[in-house]
Amino acid sequence: MTDAILLRDDRDGIATLTLNNPGSLNALSDAMLAALKDAFATLAQDRGTRVVILKGAGKAFCAGHDLKEMQAGRQAEDKGRAYFADLFARCSDVMQMIPVLPQPVIAEVHGIATAAGCQLVASCDMAVAAEGTRFGVNGVNIGLFCSTPMVALSRNVPRKVAFEMLTTGQFIDAARAAEVGLVNRVVSHEALAQETWALAKTVAGKLSAAVKIGKRAFYDQIEMTRADAYDHAAAVMVENMLWRDTEEGISAFIEKRKPDWS
Amino acid sequence: MTDAILLRDDRDGIATLTLNNPGSLNALSDAMLAALKDAFATLAQDRGTRVVILKGAGKAFCAGHDLKEMQAGRQAEDKGRAYFADLFARCSDVMQMIPVLPQPVIAEVHGIATAAGCQLVASCDMAVAAEGTRFGVNGVNIGLFCSTPMVALSRNVPRKVAFEMLTTGQFIDAARAAEVGLVNRVVSHEALAQETWALAKTVAGKLSAAVKIGKRAFYDQIEMTRADAYDHAAAVMVENMLWRDTEEGISAFIEKRKPDWS
Amino acid sequence: MTDAILLRDDRDGIATLTLNNPGSLNALSDAMLAALKDAFATLAQDRGTRVVILKGAGKAFCAGHDLKEMQAGRQAEDKGRAYFADLFARCSDVMQMIPVLPQPVIAEVHGIATAAGCQLVASCDMAVAAEGTRFGVNGVNIGLFCSTPMVALSRNVPRKVAFEMLTTGQFIDAARAAEVGLVNRVVSHEALAQETWALAKTVAGKLSAAVKIGKRAFYDQIEMTRADAYDHAAAVMVENMLWRDTEEGISAFIEKRKPDWS
Repeated sequence: MTDAILLRDDRDGIATLTLNNPGSLNALSDAMLAALKDAFATLAQDRGTRVVILKGAGKAFCAGHDLKEMQAGRQAEDKGRAYFADLFARCSDVMQMIPVLPQPVIAEVHGIATAAGCQLVASCDMAVAAEGTRFGVNGVNIGLFCSTPMVALSRNVPRKVAFEMLTTGQFIDAARAAEVGLVNRVVSHEALAQETWALAKTVAGKLSAAVKIGKRAFYDQIEMTRADAYDHAAAVMVENMLWRDTEEGISAFIEKRKPDWS
Repeated sequence: MTDAILLRDDRDGIATLTLNNPGSLNALSDAMLAALKDAFATLAQDRGTRVVILKGAGKAFCAGHDLKEMQAGRQAEDKGRAYFADLFARCSDVMQMIPVLPQPVIAEVHGIATAAGCQLVASCDMAVAAEGTRFGVNGVNIGLFCSTPMVALSRNVPRKVAFEMLTTGQFIDAARAAEVGLVNRVVSHEALAQETWALAKTVAGKLSAAVKIGKRAFYDQIEMTRADAYDHAAAVMVENMLWRDTEEGISAFIEKRKPDWS
Repeated sequence: MTDAILLRDDRDGIATLTLNNPGSLNALSDAMLAALKDAFATLAQDRGTRVVILKGAGKAFCAGHDLKEMQAGRQAEDKGRAYFADLFARCSDVMQMIPVLPQPVIAEVHGIATAAGCQLVASCDMAVAAEGTRFGVNGVNIGLFCSTPMVALSRNVPRKVAFEMLTTGQFIDAARAAEVGLVNRVVSHEALAQETWALAKTVAGKLSAAVKIGKRAFYDQIEMTRADAYDHAAAVMVENMLWRDTEEGISAFIEKRKPDWS
């Protein structure tokens, strides 16, 4: 099983997905995209999992698409048009499964996160990066502008920062990534797994139903006008208030004791 | 009058509202929300007031909803559903009165600003915070995700920052709050009142009608497409240009003298 | 030709536009707006130009509208209403030509960038600023709220930062401008031209068609919902993939050689 292209490890209600094709810097090949889609679809039904960590095996988090596989697609009669359309649709679907997933997804990032690999970081709900990690949407360097990664990136960082990364193809380091909002924090390479785990544990320790209703509301409201967002969020809070576990959580707080959420 | 739940003090065209229930860390109880609604409704008609400062008495700015009052709402036959729906609608309305108020509203924040208290800071047009202030949307800790505070927060700070605060329930300090855009500046506790006052005085010294037409346009245009926003803002500037006081302001500038706006 | 109000210099596929009315701090007079409109319209058809630099001659980048000319507009029977409506429409059109221009536009900023001058910086795709440059949307100081500059500014920087600049009229320095996302980087005054040129050269060295399709997609997708943005960006990537130069770029990368894009 450890030679599968995507590994899943479960502990303490936290599922760790590991992109496991280090020889290709964990490229998002057809096989990797299919594996991610399956893994996310399974997680979407998995009520026992509270948090997901997404990381990469080997030297890098993820270096984007599998370029050789893409070039091979040109052999078709239509020179690859149908294949590329299908590929970018599949990839975009996988990226958009992350905000829709009930569980928060934390990217644990090291080495490099480039092109669709950088998009994967931007698409996760949170990200922890090791010092020295380099981020880039560098497709422009080979004549392929990172248009789909741009969708996620430009919803994470200020406009001029996104524009510069996209048109220069230059990398930013982890410290800069934290500064502009692409990752939540930077830690030493040695502490990466431990710090990501600590963050996952913190979130996993909350009332899972509250985290899930909240995550869904987060992405729903963010694209609405403020007035609509308030109507939506207020309705969510009413539902949340009526749960027995929330009643217990508030009572426990008032009585200065731990809630019984067993 | 100094035992009222919300104090109002007027000086130099600046109205200071003080949340005055320090025993509950200025909780947004039914009574406090009603007092804020009344105060904002009065200010909306008050042509003499140019700027509003919103602060809290005692150890904290505001610690959010009144949890005991909320739990008491569960006694109703519907277990509180109607009460909670009404409560969150009233609270959301009060929050949304701030951007709609003609005067700029500056939060003067110290101690803690949590849950709906943090939302109050995010809803203000500007905020000055004392060193050591802690900000959090920590409802998730008691099983109640801060869904309505999220609406204001996620329109102030980068997405991953908002998501982390909401799902970990962890506090950020004033320096971090400034870094991510939740407050405009951090000052020493001793200088808080003075620095907030100085900011208020600066804004109060401008042509009041220009500040008011500008504030309204700010929130109107921010939810539009760029093209619609420009159409709207251009129409606003034409109106602004045609005022006698603006003609005088520009003439004074050209003639290197103070405008006569008496 | 060097006494034209707007200079254009072409070198290495980079067009440098210089606002050339230093006596008025390069005010956006009727003549300057007309010259910019013409220059941008020409560039929109100019397939040889890959990148545009926009800078100002003399002590400042640009100090905004020509106030004397505006005051003169009041002589009309309608006290200037038709003239002002036309002026703000023309100015807004010129600002919006920048994101629509096929080439990336880099502002090279020094001295001051105020009111519509600050808007010009915000409207450019990227900006490099000299240390000591001051940025402001200070119309409020003379009774004319910077409503149209606000449209560009509030799409560059966090809300509370924009609100403070607009209602206090106070300047921020170059370091702060970089921190909040209004400019990409700050360099010494001596290095300004060289650093801006280096950035322009970097972008000009990419496959021009990829930069152009990417720039257009950047501004198209940023106002869409995430789902629509992905549909749009995926279609753009399919087109991009089918170009011969992109095929060559990817092949060259795989074969570890320079692409032949001659």
